[in-house]
Amino acid sequence: MRAWIIDKDEDGRPTMVLREVEPPPLGPADVRVRVEAIGVNRADLLQVRGLYPAPPGVDPRIPGLEYAGTVEEVGARVQLHKVGDRVMGLVPGASYAEQVGTTEREAIPVPAGMDAVQAAAVPEDFMTAYRAMFLEGGLQPGQWVLIRPATAGVGLAGVQLTRALGARSLGTSRSEERLQEAVRRGLDVPLLEGAGPLPERVLQATGGEGAAVILDMLGGAAFADNLASLRLEGSLVMIGRMTPGTGELDPGQMLMRRLRIRGMTMRAQPLEERIRIARIFHERLAPLFGTGRLQPMVSLVHAFEDALQAHRDMLDNKHLGKIVLRVRQG
Amino acid sequence: MRAWIIDKDEDGRPTMVLREVEPPPLGPADVRVRVEAIGVNRADLLQVRGLYPAPPGVDPRIPGLEYAGTVEEVGARVQLHKVGDRVMGLVPGASYAEQVGTTEREAIPVPAGMDAVQAAAVPEDFMTAYRAMFLEGGLQPGQWVLIRPATAGVGLAGVQLTRALGARSLGTSRSEERLQEAVRRGLDVPLLEGAGPLPERVLQATGGEGAAVILDMLGGAAFADNLASLRLEGSLVMIGRMTPGTGELDPGQMLMRRLRIRGMTMRAQPLEERIRIARIFHERLAPLFGTGRLQPMVSLVHAFEDALQAHRDMLDNKHLGKIVLRVRQG
Repeated sequence: MRAWIIDKDEDGRPTMVLREVEPPPLGPADVRVRVEAIGVNRADLLQVRGLYPAPPGVDPRIPGLEYAGTVEEVGARVQLHKVGDRVMGLVPGASYAEQVGTTEREAIPVPAGMDAVQAAAVPEDFMTAYRAMFLEGGLQPGQWVLIRPATAGVGLAGVQLTRALGARSLGTSRSEERLQEAVRRGLDVPLLEGAGPLPERVLQATGGEGAAVILDMLGGAAFADNLASLRLEGSLVMIGRMTPGTGELDPGQMLMRRLRIRGMTMRAQPLEERIRIARIFHERLAPLFGTGRLQPMVSLVHAFEDALQAHRDMLDNKHLGKIVLRVRQG
Repeated sequence: MRAWIIDKDEDGRPTMVLREVEPPPLGPADVRVRVEAIGVNRADLLQVRGLYPAPPGVDPRIPGLEYAGTVEEVGARVQLHKVGDRVMGLVPGASYAEQVGTTEREAIPVPAGMDAVQAAAVPEDFMTAYRAMFLEGGLQPGQWVLIRPATAGVGLAGVQLTRALGARSLGTSRSEERLQEAVRRGLDVPLLEGAGPLPERVLQATGGEGAAVILDMLGGAAFADNLASLRLEGSLVMIGRMTPGTGELDPGQMLMRRLRIRGMTMRAQPLEERIRIARIFHERLAPLFGTGRLQPMVSLVHAFEDALQAHRDMLDNKHLGKIVLRVRQG
């Protein structure tokens, strides 16, 4: 099969090259998937640059965290899937390839009516947002969640989930135009970053209550405003650090307001946790794509062979939704 | 009834005076308890000094968070208790009195073989430590918990609970002598504060793993060492701030090690949460006092009339276990 392999260019800079490699091994509880589309994630760019190494047990040469395709071969003990089934999912690495191997319980049936390009845009953003806001943060119907920013892939998925599951969203961005797009996707309260003190605006928009959960991708520079925007017993879930620096934590504030902070990443999960999230997605969220209450957000589609251009596009940061690679098998 | 009332002395300094006041009201789901012993807590001293005001709905004049005694009168709808039952428990305030009123579901039967002075030493320390380590922190059998310090009331209760419930404890103190006493109570690994870098000693003692949970009463100055002592997906539960200052939070560390931090106080809980903790104590911990696997830790007993001396003793910080006021009713 062909796969994108992490390499150096003639000047010693990190890049990827498309090569013929051995297909992934197939264990008795695994399925081998003929990949039709691949979601591009910021983590892929970091991995190419050596900043986000693959976890143990994963082919470290091939980047890529999500895929959609068709089951091509099943291991001897596989029960959930058969050859020809359309599946999608997360893998801890190596999805930039014509074939992906995964344990069958991590592979999720593609919801009816969704094509492979759309399906490849779904798992990472929606599973990350659902896990962070609802499983880790404990967001409940009626409560407010603050999403920073609400205008990238995970943030927009968070906006959709908030609306679909009965909670209320506040979302930030540095771009008024992007905020308006997020409002079209269901964002309740758009908040332009830098247009005044954020905690006061959050308190005002929530009737003095504050956010029950914050889904934060900004990190250090956003930390103080985040803590001050939380309601009593609120949860700050940190899943990214787009800004540099550290935050100052006031123990008195933590105690008196009984706040919670947790760091989360999707990738470095043990198998049983990856399966747990995949099954939760299949049970709770996949049905909502069927009814249109959740929708994939594809901004750009490139051919598999143009993965380097897809990475450049991601760095340019002009897309709002997902960048997807479409694989046309030879 | 007589009760200690927060007041000022002739120099305008905060103090308490023993006065005759109306007994507490008795609602239909309440019990009125003739108080036989009262546990003294640091929060009581803070309340007298105006630094820890009573939550809404509680008599703000009378300090006191825990009691043991005998049910003297029951409301019309009371089902769990009858007149003459021996009970103990936490209240959000006003336990420095000859009578306490409480909803019946917050009152816990005194375990067999425990006298009132012992019983009054139990609820705050053991319920705080259990809730922080096991309910908030999620401590599991076999895991390591780091307790800072392990030589005050809550810390020693945490040491006992860790041993009784199958987990393993590391505990700190600035006093070698107190650490040895904690070891006699079941502390597995004593760590003298200031005798070298704490995270390295924690990692060494835990075979490189780190603490799954940290029960922290130190606050700001301890924060950096605490985060560095946690294992992957570890939880720091902050329940006090005996040291000044703030902590520096590194978002990268939070994300890559998927850490959790939460602030907790026992007092400012809504009724349903107070009841939940009381029922959990009754079901899970009370039986262990009956078998001796958990033991009350009374250091000093004063007469009810000597509450001011009890507060001075607490400030002197010479006791290891609990200071209790014994009430001899007139």
